[in-house]
Amino acid sequence: MKFRELTVREIADHVGGTVEGEGDAVIRRAMPIEEAGPGDLTFVANPRYAKLLAEARASAVIVERAVARPPGVTLVRAASPYLAFAKALTLLIEPERPAPGVHPAAWVEPSARLGEGVTVMAHGYVGRAAEVGAGSVLYPGAVVLEHAKVGASCILYPGAVVREACVLGDRVIVHANVSIGSDGFGFAPEGETHFKIPQVGNVVIGDDVEIGSGTCVDRAALGSTRIGAGSKIDDMVMLGHGSRVGRNCILAGGAGLSGSAALGDSVTMGARSGTVGHITVGAGSLIYSTTVVTKPLPERSAVSGNPARPHQESLRLQALPTRLERQLERLQARVDALEAELARAKGGG
Amino acid sequence: MKFRELTVREIADHVGGTVEGEGDAVIRRAMPIEEAGPGDLTFVANPRYAKLLAEARASAVIVERAVARPPGVTLVRAASPYLAFAKALTLLIEPERPAPGVHPAAWVEPSARLGEGVTVMAHGYVGRAAEVGAGSVLYPGAVVLEHAKVGASCILYPGAVVREACVLGDRVIVHANVSIGSDGFGFAPEGETHFKIPQVGNVVIGDDVEIGSGTCVDRAALGSTRIGAGSKIDDMVMLGHGSRVGRNCILAGGAGLSGSAALGDSVTMGARSGTVGHITVGAGSLIYSTTVVTKPLPERSAVSGNPARPHQESLRLQALPTRLERQLERLQARVDALEAELARAKGGG
Amino acid sequence: MKFRELTVREIADHVGGTVEGEGDAVIRRAMPIEEAGPGDLTFVANPRYAKLLAEARASAVIVERAVARPPGVTLVRAASPYLAFAKALTLLIEPERPAPGVHPAAWVEPSARLGEGVTVMAHGYVGRAAEVGAGSVLYPGAVVLEHAKVGASCILYPGAVVREACVLGDRVIVHANVSIGSDGFGFAPEGETHFKIPQVGNVVIGDDVEIGSGTCVDRAALGSTRIGAGSKIDDMVMLGHGSRVGRNCILAGGAGLSGSAALGDSVTMGARSGTVGHITVGAGSLIYSTTVVTKPLPERSAVSGNPARPHQESLRLQALPTRLERQLERLQARVDALEAELARAKGGG
Repeated sequence: MKFRELTVREIADHVGGTVEGEGDAVIRRAMPIEEAGPGDLTFVANPRYAKLLAEARASAVIVERAVARPPGVTLVRAASPYLAFAKALTLLIEPERPAPGVHPAAWVEPSARLGEGVTVMAHGYVGRAAEVGAGSVLYPGAVVLEHAKVGASCILYPGAVVREACVLGDRVIVHANVSIGSDGFGFAPEGETHFKIPQVGNVVIGDDVEIGSGTCVDRAALGSTRIGAGSKIDDMVMLGHGSRVGRNCILAGGAGLSGSAALGDSVTMGARSGTVGHITVGAGSLIYSTTVVTKPLPERSAVSGNPARPHQESLRLQALPTRLERQLERLQARVDALEAELARAKGGG
Repeated sequence: MKFRELTVREIADHVGGTVEGEGDAVIRRAMPIEEAGPGDLTFVANPRYAKLLAEARASAVIVERAVARPPGVTLVRAASPYLAFAKALTLLIEPERPAPGVHPAAWVEPSARLGEGVTVMAHGYVGRAAEVGAGSVLYPGAVVLEHAKVGASCILYPGAVVREACVLGDRVIVHANVSIGSDGFGFAPEGETHFKIPQVGNVVIGDDVEIGSGTCVDRAALGSTRIGAGSKIDDMVMLGHGSRVGRNCILAGGAGLSGSAALGDSVTMGARSGTVGHITVGAGSLIYSTTVVTKPLPERSAVSGNPARPHQESLRLQALPTRLERQLERLQARVDALEAELARAKGGG
Repeated sequence: MKFRELTVREIADHVGGTVEGEGDAVIRRAMPIEEAGPGDLTFVANPRYAKLLAEARASAVIVERAVARPPGVTLVRAASPYLAFAKALTLLIEPERPAPGVHPAAWVEPSARLGEGVTVMAHGYVGRAAEVGAGSVLYPGAVVLEHAKVGASCILYPGAVVREACVLGDRVIVHANVSIGSDGFGFAPEGETHFKIPQVGNVVIGDDVEIGSGTCVDRAALGSTRIGAGSKIDDMVMLGHGSRVGRNCILAGGAGLSGSAALGDSVTMGARSGTVGHITVGAGSLIYSTTVVTKPLPERSAVSGNPARPHQESLRLQALPTRLERQLERLQARVDALEAELARAKGGG
């Protein structure tokens, strides 16, 4: 990864921040605050790391508006330090894009259509009548099968697979060993055996979606499995056939949707959370890690547990046995006292 | 996906159903009931979707024998609508099989043996002394290492890996980025370090098995990891070294068997369920989603929970704290009353 | 897998064991005890399998010092039979290493540096300015991107991906379809959308690490994601960006570390266990299967449950509702008796 050289002030201007300290200092790299030294940009967004600020040796630290400035530390104040840092970093790095063109060891079927400036690296493959939009990159071993359409400025990392007739929007990032469009898991029982239901649908992915390594997005039996624009999906997520992810959702590592489940827009699924099939989760909902959603959820739900319940109720349920134990002990003491009193009453009667 | 044109009656005859309505209507496609229109075949198997039947615009809907026919809707009645639809779909689609032959950008070692009509697409690989049976297809980037045997009419999708000496039956479907025959996870402690136990066994897979994307089936340390004929395995399942899956089992997404665990025939494992190692699950058992089986199970068990218990007991246990809370409240009220009564008795004594 | 022929005595000498029985018998293979016959070596480490010893037909069985010798069975006694068997097996097998050299269907960029005796099989790829150390093997479809460094005597199985600038030590084994160095999952909220945080760090893996199929090790946003020397990682494990695994750790199938979580040395994580981000687990800790660690843990912790608690406390909590149910029933009986007694007292008053 190569970095450009920029002054602290240039960076602050780009991210809409204000400088306190050495605005002319030159930034050549970005590092975590503990490891940052002269020439480095870093940031503090998590209050957990605020105590490291006083000892920071970085040439500039992006912080919140309210943070006190330790002597000798150059700050870039921003409303959202994490976002400001992300933008600074995007400005600082020189993306090392592979050179455009089809590598002699790649294979592109003659009926495939490649946009301008497409890169297909060694052992990349584009199938019959498939399309890859302008500026997209297929890394070694990335595969786009026949009739699939990959939009412009997409990146398909090594081992990314896009099967037949699947559709990707623009600026979609598909990480290593992702499988898009594999057959959904559908079988009809026939006596002891399982009769395969042909999976004749596809997968349709919106613009600006990112899909983490090892994730599997299965094609629909009929119609389309869909991921809305702007959604970000982590590693080893599984999206069953016919499932739908809304726009701007966040699905953390190992999350999953069973077949035909649907998420509204801006839903967050924590790590290893999942849903049963054929249910809908309302927009803006938050599903905590390891939750299993078994029923439809209204908008802006916040659920946890297996099976999922409103998060406050899950916390209450989790603490319940220990609370009951204490209550039971107190009640036992009261019954002890009653028995003793009654015994005295009888003895003294 | 290309569809043949067939009349409703031709389809009904093929699936053993009876037509009510326009038997001569031509079917050109299959779609979900909400999206289906003229020329489309659809079905209703799940009662959840029955209310959509009255508004169906499809040219024919496959339904159960007992369903009432809404005016103007053409029905194909079948004992098992889901199975009938699967068979109809199989009849309707024209499988787009890649042309047979070894692609010039593929590599097949000279000592490998390919059956008649085998396809090895670009960047496919078949190793020394490996065998691939008649009519099988290796998609781009599929890899069969030395001494492995792949049966007839198998499909290995992009990134499917079959390691040395593993054996696949006929009509096995291996989806994208599946790993078959990787070393099992075996180490012997030696002081602070872990000494690798060579995994000298293999994987043996029966006929008509399907294996979903990202699934890992590890080779045995000694002997074989086995999957019985007709079993269907979803995405991201993990089968540890020396584990055994019986015939006609169903393993949903993210399920797993630890080393040397064994399933009898016709076992169903729900999503993300798993077992510890070295145990046996009896034939016909049902393991609910997210269950962790920690002990051997007799035939036809139905278990849930972590650790697994009989399903009815798990449901009871799950509801227990809330029930205890109510019982405790009632008991507290009774103790309140007793204390009050005793106080009155003393006061009035 | 080819086996050498060795006498029982040669094997015993190699593993530091003592022979009882036919030391001159020739061993040609290793098999599980139930399947082993003449010419086979086997072992009994798990007391569960001890009853099979009397019926063993193997030419030699590696056992503990204390086990009684059944008549006619040749034993090799060793302090640690499992370790001794692992060493015997390592001696017995002839590793079938692919021939050194770059296959004509592989692609190695001119600026890449390969050590002596490196193998790059068909469709293997080594990027610009990348390094692969002496004796390492890239199987078909293994990919090492630019500026990455792979040490000596490593094995990268088919579909293994090492992304830009990642560093692997010596004797690292990377199984099929592993993804090393994919972008971590980092986004800064910007209104309704998610702004990608460039992941400019890398992954650094120590010597003698083994990584199971389908595992994803994400690159750090800044700095490095690290796996310490000697750690062994099973299939489908996920290591989030900036996480750290100490030396000689064991991570079983489906385990995971969220971003910036850190394990000390010699930590064991059971199957599907995980941690939240930004916490540290002390050296020598044991995390049971399916545990979710939500807080920092001191050295030598043993935890289970979701959320994780000390294992004994988890077991107590798990049994608590059933215990409370019994206690509550007893207390109800006592209150019944009190009420009856008070009624009698009133009636008789």
